[in-house]
Amino acid sequence: MSSWSGPLTLLLSSALLLLLTSSSHSAAALKAPHLLGRHRVTRSLPQQRPVSYTTLYLDQQIDHFGFLENGTFKQRYLLNDLHWHKDNSPILFYTGNEGDITWFCNNTGFMWDIAEELGAMLVFAEHRYYGESLPFGDESYSNAKYLNYLTSEQALADFAVLIENLKKTYPGAQNSPVIAIGGSYGGMLSAWLRMKYPSAVVGALAASAPIWQFTDMVPCGDFYKIVTQDFAISGFNCSNNIRRSWMAINNVSSTDEGLQWLSEEFRLCSPLKEEDVSGFKGWLQETWVNLAMVDYPYEANFLQPLPRWPIKVVCSYLSFVTDVPDKELLHGISQAVNVYYNYTGNAECLNISLTATGNLGIRGWFYQSCTEMVMPMCTDGIQDMFEPQPWNFQAFSDECYDLFGVRPREHWADTVYGGKNICSHSNIIFSNGRLDPWMSGGVTRLCGVSDSLVAIVIPDGAHHLDLRYNNEYDPETVIRARAVEVQYFKKWIKQSTNTR
Amino acid sequence: MSSWSGPLTLLLSSALLLLLTSSSHSAAALKAPHLLGRHRVTRSLPQQRPVSYTTLYLDQQIDHFGFLENGTFKQRYLLNDLHWHKDNSPILFYTGNEGDITWFCNNTGFMWDIAEELGAMLVFAEHRYYGESLPFGDESYSNAKYLNYLTSEQALADFAVLIENLKKTYPGAQNSPVIAIGGSYGGMLSAWLRMKYPSAVVGALAASAPIWQFTDMVPCGDFYKIVTQDFAISGFNCSNNIRRSWMAINNVSSTDEGLQWLSEEFRLCSPLKEEDVSGFKGWLQETWVNLAMVDYPYEANFLQPLPRWPIKVVCSYLSFVTDVPDKELLHGISQAVNVYYNYTGNAECLNISLTATGNLGIRGWFYQSCTEMVMPMCTDGIQDMFEPQPWNFQAFSDECYDLFGVRPREHWADTVYGGKNICSHSNIIFSNGRLDPWMSGGVTRLCGVSDSLVAIVIPDGAHHLDLRYNNEYDPETVIRARAVEVQYFKKWIKQSTNTR
Repeated sequence: MSSWSGPLTLLLSSALLLLLTSSSHSAAALKAPHLLGRHRVTRSLPQQRPVSYTTLYLDQQIDHFGFLENGTFKQRYLLNDLHWHKDNSPILFYTGNEGDITWFCNNTGFMWDIAEELGAMLVFAEHRYYGESLPFGDESYSNAKYLNYLTSEQALADFAVLIENLKKTYPGAQNSPVIAIGGSYGGMLSAWLRMKYPSAVVGALAASAPIWQFTDMVPCGDFYKIVTQDFAISGFNCSNNIRRSWMAINNVSSTDEGLQWLSEEFRLCSPLKEEDVSGFKGWLQETWVNLAMVDYPYEANFLQPLPRWPIKVVCSYLSFVTDVPDKELLHGISQAVNVYYNYTGNAECLNISLTATGNLGIRGWFYQSCTEMVMPMCTDGIQDMFEPQPWNFQAFSDECYDLFGVRPREHWADTVYGGKNICSHSNIIFSNGRLDPWMSGGVTRLCGVSDSLVAIVIPDGAHHLDLRYNNEYDPETVIRARAVEVQYFKKWIKQSTNTR
Repeated sequence: MSSWSGPLTLLLSSALLLLLTSSSHSAAALKAPHLLGRHRVTRSLPQQRPVSYTTLYLDQQIDHFGFLENGTFKQRYLLNDLHWHKDNSPILFYTGNEGDITWFCNNTGFMWDIAEELGAMLVFAEHRYYGESLPFGDESYSNAKYLNYLTSEQALADFAVLIENLKKTYPGAQNSPVIAIGGSYGGMLSAWLRMKYPSAVVGALAASAPIWQFTDMVPCGDFYKIVTQDFAISGFNCSNNIRRSWMAINNVSSTDEGLQWLSEEFRLCSPLKEEDVSGFKGWLQETWVNLAMVDYPYEANFLQPLPRWPIKVVCSYLSFVTDVPDKELLHGISQAVNVYYNYTGNAECLNISLTATGNLGIRGWFYQSCTEMVMPMCTDGIQDMFEPQPWNFQAFSDECYDLFGVRPREHWADTVYGGKNICSHSNIIFSNGRLDPWMSGGVTRLCGVSDSLVAIVIPDGAHHLDLRYNNEYDPETVIRARAVEVQYFKKWIKQSTNTR
């Protein structure tokens, strides 16, 4: 129970593909962001209350959409009915992301906070191919044939079947309205569950769910613009100095002495070699992205143990005026990076290489982004603080083929989930934090037609802040957002009671 | 162009499974109804106007829901843009059933009748595994592996992809609102297309679409009760005498002389043997069911060339008082059957055995009913005029396994398409004819919540009468139904223009 090194949350992506393969593409994909599962995270957080649940398993078809493969697997789900009033009382149903469901269960304090008020049962459903819900056991990732059933459509079908099963078999649950809740990729699944299976859920809260981060829906550069903006507002010259750091690294790393200096300055676990410089820069880029996602207003431990408003702390090391010497700039970068990797002071050295071998979660999300979840990303170095890198679908596709023997279908997510044309749906809340880079692909404006699709923007919020436990340092805006969300839940519950 | 022996339309079913296999189950499935494709149908109908269209093909993924199978096949579709006004003008999109699309194109006169008024493009999209749209060519039905992609979900995805493709590639179609139209299984697909891909179609007309003919949604006996009712109201003692005929057949067929008499009386192409008696009764039952479906108010040739109100004509041979001798009763049955099989007077003999070998359409529907499209049917001989036969899922499942190596999933259609809980959807018209046995599984009553789900019942209508060409003998009720349908089409088109 004490530590965990699985995949944490959404949107691991193609950057890692390059690191996993020996490919030498200078691929577009390199710059794509991801939340990483390679850092150890302890579960005993200051803000976290103890949670208790029953662990259950449901037999699910491996293939919901074909009948030749008739095997089943055990989907794990966690259930708490402490506050549930039975008949007509609601079920809050977390649509699991790309990782171990217990981790999401422990990191979605909002559901635990409101269970009593709503008299709600809590269910946390694990996504197939993650955690313990492995269709082919330990072999699930061993070949393309076994991986073939890792899709969002299959996962949604699992959720719909599980909900139907709960209603049929759980005494008193037959008429319970179910509300889907999820954050990040899990939030996308919540929204899609309501869109595709509205008979299963009366509504959905899709927190920080970038359902529009697909081809031709939003500019590929928006994500990194938000990351940059977060640093720009958090300290004098902060984003400018990060922008300058790439060239400084190029300069310093051009000599053996420089490489050695970098290794020592950053206290890297393995000495930096010439061929690692690109990976080193990728690791830094990932660090800034992660910080943007978890720029929470209080001490937290979502991806790493971090101080409150961590970017402000990071930027306190990066407020140089222009033209500071390269090594001085990089010393600041090194101190900044240590805020992220060594807030506790326990890290003996920093590891820029992946320790993800055998980490099913990361590999699973790679597979998903190599098939359906194609999210174009790009940088230009002007509107953002990163090295310029255009989006290159073909290079990305080739990497995927090398790695998994499959090719991504660029437009499928648009077709199957309706793209930007979602106006005919109902009862979905899209919440986004303005600090969260994933807001780039989030739904923040809606068609006027529907009065039951709701977009909430939380000015001081990072990645799905609203789904976290309430906290004394919560900004007023997230407190209000949660209140509005609960209001809508109550409205949907009432609607469902009236129409039965 | 002159004749056609392919599958005609919806809901071929498990009765034929027994005939195709050598199984000796006395299975529940025997009594299940089907529209047959085994009778020759000429295309030159009195009511039919000549239609013209371009035949086109689109490359479709064989598997939309998995990435290992990355092959494509050519989906056929027919297009007519004679009356289309380009920008903003609508597209009426026929969601093809289980058969050759040209046949549905020729038998959906309603679309041709209203194209000019709406300035509409007409598109008729073929369903995969039927007509020319064969994912693995002539091998498509050769094994379970190739059949694995024959599902309604894959077909709906084909339609959504085709619509997106039309909008992207057809000059002027980018903003065209698309309305799905279909009858029977095609109507189910229309409704489901709107439910699952509301971004693709602004609304749907689901004519005679039994989307509730699945397990636990409606009583399994309703279908045959409607068939019986059609005969009961069409002539004195008509249904009673058909009910009596089964015992009369049992009596007469108990001797060799009786079998010979039956063969001669019914002018059967092959002499009836003892082991054929069950099949003979099945063939008669199917005949009554087919007549109930096509009990149109004018001479028509949908399944067979038939007089107007054919059941009235049939019943004119069956108005005996009680206790008429068996052979006299069966002579009446024989004359009645000839109304169906020999209205033109050209049939030299009647063939009760299947000529469906190689008929992909029939085999395709068998496969679909053996997987997703499980529609329980039963008779009790009291509320209906047939021999009692309970529904037996296990026996049905075993037949399916023998035939295709797959087992049906009894509750999947409920889960994936929402069962009776469809209130949150919008812009779907469900039309049903009160004479049509498939109204048993049709949507005739709706939740009060939605004002954009519409149920139309046509008192004098048989199977999707409203989709046929208008005709001087059309009852007022179908004329009104079509007018309401067009009104809704116009409303949806206007809505879509306003929200763009």
